[in-house]
Amino acid sequence: MHTKWKTWAHVTKLDPDKHLTEEQIAEIATSGTDALILSGTLNITKENMTELRDQVKEYGLPLVVEPAGPESVVFHGIDLLYVASVMNTSDARWIVGKHRDWAMNPDIVWDKVIPEAYIVLNPNSAVGKVTGADCGISAQEVAAYASVADHYFKFPIVYIEYSGMYGDPDVVCEASKAIDHAILYYGGGIDSGAKAAEMARYADTIVVGNAVYDKGVKTLLETVQAVQ
Amino acid sequence: MHTKWKTWAHVTKLDPDKHLTEEQIAEIATSGTDALILSGTLNITKENMTELRDQVKEYGLPLVVEPAGPESVVFHGIDLLYVASVMNTSDARWIVGKHRDWAMNPDIVWDKVIPEAYIVLNPNSAVGKVTGADCGISAQEVAAYASVADHYFKFPIVYIEYSGMYGDPDVVCEASKAIDHAILYYGGGIDSGAKAAEMARYADTIVVGNAVYDKGVKTLLETVQAVQ
Repeated sequence: MHTKWKTWAHVTKLDPDKHLTEEQIAEIATSGTDALILSGTLNITKENMTELRDQVKEYGLPLVVEPAGPESVVFHGIDLLYVASVMNTSDARWIVGKHRDWAMNPDIVWDKVIPEAYIVLNPNSAVGKVTGADCGISAQEVAAYASVADHYFKFPIVYIEYSGMYGDPDVVCEASKAIDHAILYYGGGIDSGAKAAEMARYADTIVVGNAVYDKGVKTLLETVQAVQ
Repeated sequence: MHTKWKTWAHVTKLDPDKHLTEEQIAEIATSGTDALILSGTLNITKENMTELRDQVKEYGLPLVVEPAGPESVVFHGIDLLYVASVMNTSDARWIVGKHRDWAMNPDIVWDKVIPEAYIVLNPNSAVGKVTGADCGISAQEVAAYASVADHYFKFPIVYIEYSGMYGDPDVVCEASKAIDHAILYYGGGIDSGAKAAEMARYADTIVVGNAVYDKGVKTLLETVQAVQ
């Protein structure tokens, strides 16, 4: 598991604050997606995180928890913990502060932790609002953050997060050119095979989330088929 | 040079904004110190950085430039560039912002760059004031920042910076216990062999700076002999 995640082309992000039927979960888990990421921004707790984990675990797909903060960290029964640091915010809590608070806790299983450099680009998304991200930056500035995340901080993942909105492929292209080592994630607004394929030209891994809830599992299957 | 720096026990920090005679520089360079770091917080420019570099280069000691910001970066004729990110500030410019600005520049020699996680603990120092560091944190909080710097950001250097003031050895001890991989630097107020030896119990590398200017090269020699 420690390096296999680097080969994932398509991951599905499930929100512990939203409901899926058993049938929907079965379809998602057998869609061909490479892994499930349990992640949300609002109303995320250990309780709804573990509840979702228990709903999906029987399918044997790799399970990643991406906590909204220290309060929603779950290690038990999951493979990896993706922990984000937001590059383009002036609020240091989301870069290093909450991580400091979390590290006061002696029970961290660092071997499961994969750090992610988030570059948040949708000002109207919950993650954009909560973290106070400066979403009005140029493609060149996005690329500079990506370069710093890769070359300076050595983040294994750089994540272009348009959360809920389809982003600018040129921005993702510039970010990909700025990176030498990190795996580039793209997430936001992928709700068709064409959009999945377009972002997969530049990103190593694409993330499909809202489309599962808004458009259904059939759309998820199209995005999987477009990149696998 | 790429890993040899990890074995340095004693480094001497020279300030490009201060003057040393040729004789003083000769004594410093032959003191037994492992390397020279050219570094300062105020009035640091490419010009005074290169001037100091030219004064010291003939002695063949490893030369490190630690820029105060993008404007004082020098690559030519130096071995390594130590680039700091301040963990304990609420001002994101000093964590990632200036790094982003710097990365807009295409001429960065990343192979020479060694990232440092600074934990700044003297509120009256220039670095404490300029970066707005929160110096009133507990030993446990310092240790948590050190842990995050080491386990999450994977900084190769964690640097406890009391700049100009002798620090609390218990704080340095706690930081050392929180770290598994990084090299722990301690700097601040070392102006005797006893203080050098005390901090070297916990820190891998001690930094002597102001004492060179305030107490002279004889004191520097005492600090070298105490740790080599």
